Parts: sequence; C-alpha cells; structure tokens
Amino acid sequence: MHVQEIVSTHPHVKGNTNDALLSCIEQCYSCAQTCTSCADACLGEKSVAELTQCIRLNLDCADVCLATGSVSTRRTGSNEEVIARQLDACALACRLCGEECQRHAKHHEHCRICADACAQCFEACQSASRSLGKQH
Amino acid sequence: MHVQEIVSTHPHVKGNTNDALLSCIEQCYSCAQTCTSCADACLGEKSVAELTQCIRLNLDCADVCLATGSVSTRRTGSNEEVIARQLDACALACRLCGEECQRHAKHHEHCRICADACAQCFEACQSASRSLGKQH
Amino acid sequence: MHVQEIVSTHPHVKGNTNDALLSCIEQCYSCAQTCTSCADACLGEKSVAELTQCIRLNLDCADVCLATGSVSTRRTGSNEEVIARQLDACALACRLCGEECQRHAKHHEHCRICADACAQCFEACQSASRSLGKQH
Amino acid sequence: MHVQEIVSTHPHVKGNTNDALLSCIEQCYSCAQTCTSCADACLGEKSVAELTQCIRLNLDCADVCLATGSVSTRRTGSNEEVIARQLDACALACRLCGEECQRHAKHHEHCRICADACAQCFEACQSASRSLGKQH
Repeated sequence: MHVQEIVSTHPHVKGNTNDALLSCIEQCYSCAQTCTSCADACLGEKSVAELTQCIRLNLDCADVCLATGSVSTRRTGSNEEVIARQLDACALACRLCGEECQRHAKHHEHCRICADACAQCFEACQSASRSLGKQH
Repeated sequence: MHVQEIVSTHPHVKGNTNDALLSCIEQCYSCAQTCTSCADACLGEKSVAELTQCIRLNLDCADVCLATGSVSTRRTGSNEEVIARQLDACALACRLCGEECQRHAKHHEHCRICADACAQCFEACQSASRSLGKQH
Repeated sequence: MHVQEIVSTHPHVKGNTNDALLSCIEQCYSCAQTCTSCADACLGEKSVAELTQCIRLNLDCADVCLATGSVSTRRTGSNEEVIARQLDACALACRLCGEECQRHAKHHEHCRICADACAQCFEACQSASRSLGKQH
Repeated sequence: MHVQEIVSTHPHVKGNTNDALLSCIEQCYSCAQTCTSCADACLGEKSVAELTQCIRLNLDCADVCLATGSVSTRRTGSNEEVIARQLDACALACRLCGEECQRHAKHHEHCRICADACAQCFEACQSASRSLGKQH
C-alpha cells in the first residue's frame, strides 16, 4: 500500500504526517481483507457449526475496519471527533474478533493469522487514537 | 426496504424484534445513499470550493452509516458492544454532517434534504443505542 | 429512502431523472441489507453446514449491490461505462444468489424473502442497464 | 497485507493458490485507499473546481475496487462468474480513473501517485481475469 506516499502529498498535510494514523490506515485495510478471508475459510471448514460466532465477528470487524480506514484517510476539513470515535469502535471490534479467533488458532491456521492481524490493528487503532489532537 | 420482514425471520430473533434497532438500520442505509448523493451534487455546483467541508463530512457519514447498518443487521452471536460503539460513532457523524449541510440548506436543496436525513438517522441511532441491553 | 428526492436536486440532473436508474439504486441498497441479513440468519440455523454456499453468495451479492448503488448514485462527470459494467455484475450476482436462496425458500423464510429481493434487484439492474444511453 | 498467507490456509485452497488473483486482491485494497486519499487531496486543492471529474472517478474507483477485493477474497463455493464480471468492471474503473489522474499528474503529486496505482490495479485485474478458469 502507498498510504504514507499519497497522504503526505495532501495540500493540508504538506509532508507533516501523523505516522501513527498512517500506520493504522494500512492496518485497517489489511485487517479487513484478512477478516473477510478468515470468515470465508471458516465457512469452508467441516466444523463450520462451531465457527459461526467467529464468522460473525470477522464480518463485523471487516466492515468496521473499512469504514475506519476510509474516514482516517480523509484529511480535508476537520472531522477528528468522528475519526476518534471510529478508532475506538475499530479497536473494540478487533479485540473481540481477535479473542474469538485465538480460541480456534490451534485448529485453524487462518484463525491464527487473523488473530494476529486483529491484534496488530487493535494496537494501531489505540496508538492512532492517542496521537489525535497532538498533531495532524 | 425489508428490514423488519427479514430480521424477524432470523432463528435467534424469532419475531421478537428490537424495533428501534430495525428502524435505525433502515435510516443508516438511507442516510448513506443520501450523503453519497449530496456529496456528488455538491461536486456539481459552481460554488464547489465553498462546499468541500460538506463533501468531506458527507463521505465520512456515508461510510460510517454503511458500517453501522451492516453490523446492526447481524444478530448471530452477541456483538452488542460493537453495535453500541458504532451507533455512537454514527450518531456523531450524522450530527456533524447534518449541521454542515444545514448551513447550505437555503442555497442548495440537496443539502436541505441531506440535513433532514442526517437528523433522522442521528435520532434513530440514539434511540437504538438506548434500546440495547433492554431487548434483542 | 429518498433517492428520487435527492438525485432530482443534483445540478446536472435538474429534475430530468432516469427513473429506471433511481429505482435500481433503491433496490441495490435494499438488496444489500437483505442479503446481509439472510447470510446472518443462515449462520444461525442448525443446518448451517448446508447453507455455506448460500451465505457466500449472499455476502458477494451484498458487496456488489453496495458498490453498484454508490456508483449509480453519482451523476457528476460522465462515468456511464462503469455504471453499465457494475449493473451487469450486479444483475449476475443477484441472479445467482436468488437462485441459491430459492433452493432453501421452503425451509427458511429468510431465504424466501431474500430470493424475492434478489429477483427484484436483478430486474431493476436490467431495466437500468437498458435505460443508459437513452437519458441521464 | 497478508493476502497470500491467509488465503493459502483456506480449506478449499490448500496451498494451491492463484497468484494472479491474490496479487489482484492486494492491488484492489491498495488502490481503494489511494483513490480515497486522492479524492480528498483534490478536495483540498485551490483548483478543486477543475478536479471534480477526477474526484468523482476516484470515488467510483474506490467503491468498485473494494467490492472486487472482497468477492475475490472469497473462495468457498464457486462464484467465479461474479468475480470475473467484477474484475472487468474494476479494470474499466481503474483505467478511466487512471487516465483522468494522469491529466493532473504534472500539477498534483497525489494524482501522479494515484494514476500509477490505478495502472497497477488495472494490470492486476486483467491478469487475474485471464487466470480464472485455469486454476483456482
């Protein structure tokens, strides 16, 4: 992804980027893809009946990650309150999805990978949340 | 939309629907479409340079509304915390977008319509948020 | 939804709306919500293992419907080729999802409702596709 | 992104991945983020009135890329026809958006970066389209 490269050329940013937020944007898109993939891999398992909660949390997490990635990408105008609220929602969605995936990590490699991706995105959302208000 | 009809047939719901949440789901999808349309109509105005903040808030609101509509639609498993957090983010996005649209409502009919849609969705998100925890 | 109301105020449309396309936009958002709901209801069924193909087609259909609804909503600039291509992809996604849902319609009311929604959206996409190039 | 890693663990894939499709998935998510960023950077330019067509094509391209990335990620069940149709729509959206961005590439670095991202995603969609039917 070219998050750093493209956002740093924004006329309101002028190279003065918020690195925590940029890293979070990348994690959001990546986690959305991983969760979409894990949900579908769970659907393909024989034990799908035991994975329905995992699938549901995966789908929620993917939706919340994409919305958070999009609003965090936009720098025109000031909408930091909404970004902050979305980062909090995303951190929560990632934490709950990651915890559920972790339960199946021993049996399903896709759940192990997804648990890691959710943990990374959770950390990135929290770092980005702390960075807001300090710089833009 | 068929929100009431389809959600009421969910095996975990069995007709015992949360009407505030169902109404909110409908408002979220509707507001997303209205905001997408308002952003594009603003782009078509000669005075687009004065409407960039409106366009940005429209796009953010549309993204947040869609994510909120999707996670609120899912009833399998329990993910009420994420729904609650998304409803709060959505209420905020709708309030801020609606306030900005209201500033342009006299000059642009699409902004007037969008301000109304945002106000409706804001109310629906708050009602749905209050309803969580009481019933499912 | 306020599709007709908001699109008709677009400065490039000026009341001269393409009713087939407007109807299709509404069907796309509605079908996306219905498919999201049907996928989740299928996840809640004891027979989920027999419904995985249905869930997958539901999720694909929801994604394609939302993208089609968004691009069809935008009237600024001319991007009719992309709208036309999305309408074709959406008609196909709706047809395949509707056919699969129809197979489960006797046993699951949510699949019956979703099959109807997909059939309606399929028709709307085809009508909208035919209408392009004739008026805007 | 972890596209290769997560998809290769899917029970229906079992390591036998379609590399052209995997690369395309990554390009789709990346291009969606770049287009969202370019649209917002264009909104921040003083010359926004000359960039409205670019903004519109950026927003369409982002929506189509995300839908294409999602449906291409799902491997459960066979929905190759819809993937193929989405890949074609995405190639077209990327080509048209990239051509428009190229026109502004000399004056706006974000448009130059976005033109490159669209060209890469266009190529990836075409490669992935050709690969379908040959392997899974």
